Amino acid sequence: MSMAADVSTASTLLDRIVFDKDGLVPVIAQQHDTGEVLMLAWMNRAAVDETLRTGRVCYWSRSRKALWRKGESSGQVQRLVELRVDCDQDCLLALVDQTGVACHTGRRSCFFTAIRNGTIAEVGTVLVDPAKLYGA
Amino acid sequence: MSMAADVSTASTLLDRIVFDKDGLVPVIAQQHDTGEVLMLAWMNRAAVDETLRTGRVCYWSRSRKALWRKGESSGQVQRLVELRVDCDQDCLLALVDQTGVACHTGRRSCFFTAIRNGTIAEVGTVLVDPAKLYGA
Repeated sequence: MSMAADVSTASTLLDRIVFDKDGLVPVIAQQHDTGEVLMLAWMNRAAVDETLRTGRVCYWSRSRKALWRKGESSGQVQRLVELRVDCDQDCLLALVDQTGVACHTGRRSCFFTAIRNGTIAEVGTVLVDPAKLYGA
Repeated sequence: MSMAADVSTASTLLDRIVFDKDGLVPVIAQQHDTGEVLMLAWMNRAAVDETLRTGRVCYWSRSRKALWRKGESSGQVQRLVELRVDCDQDCLLALVDQTGVACHTGRRSCFFTAIRNGTIAEVGTVLVDPAKLYGA
């Protein structure tokens, strides 16, 4: 199911969202079919709007202070399957179809460091050489 | 698998976490076996420490400005199965075993409002009367 919401629905959802004092909302990206949590990033209103209009996930980069069209430089895009908002409207859950890997380290998920059996363990595998993700 | 990290491992993980300017880090709670994303909340250093020591999830309530031992009043506790930190160490993923429902509305997950097929849809079911969750 691809998802490009019509303008009025997108506006209604946008008006529900409670952005923080920096104008941002945290967004959890989850692979829609496997349930894997891929990453957490942030959107401003323009990023939510673009994501809903295009069906391709666009975040706000807090470091670059710019719209961050996920996969723009790496090719590792996220197609939006469904966008959800939580009960107090200050967090989003994006169900996505992730091309390749979500993490800039070349791992599928950014959450690859765990406390497991009382020790810190790496639980993710590097699938793509990060140098190849961002061109050499 | 229950999880109570030893003191040195907990300290090492704590020292890795990048807390924001308010001393907080966002935490995604995910049901460990089904993959369902239940909620997003926040922890300060003391909450992470208590969660790791006790194996029971404790957040920081931004509205009450106090430690929030999930389920303290509702009984809907979260047992920690595994805690993960993301690649830039500013977000946590808590794999939990949720007793009952995570959402104060009586739904399993807080993310029960979706844009689906271009319209806003409720995708969660009320499993417990909220009045019963918090006593009458």
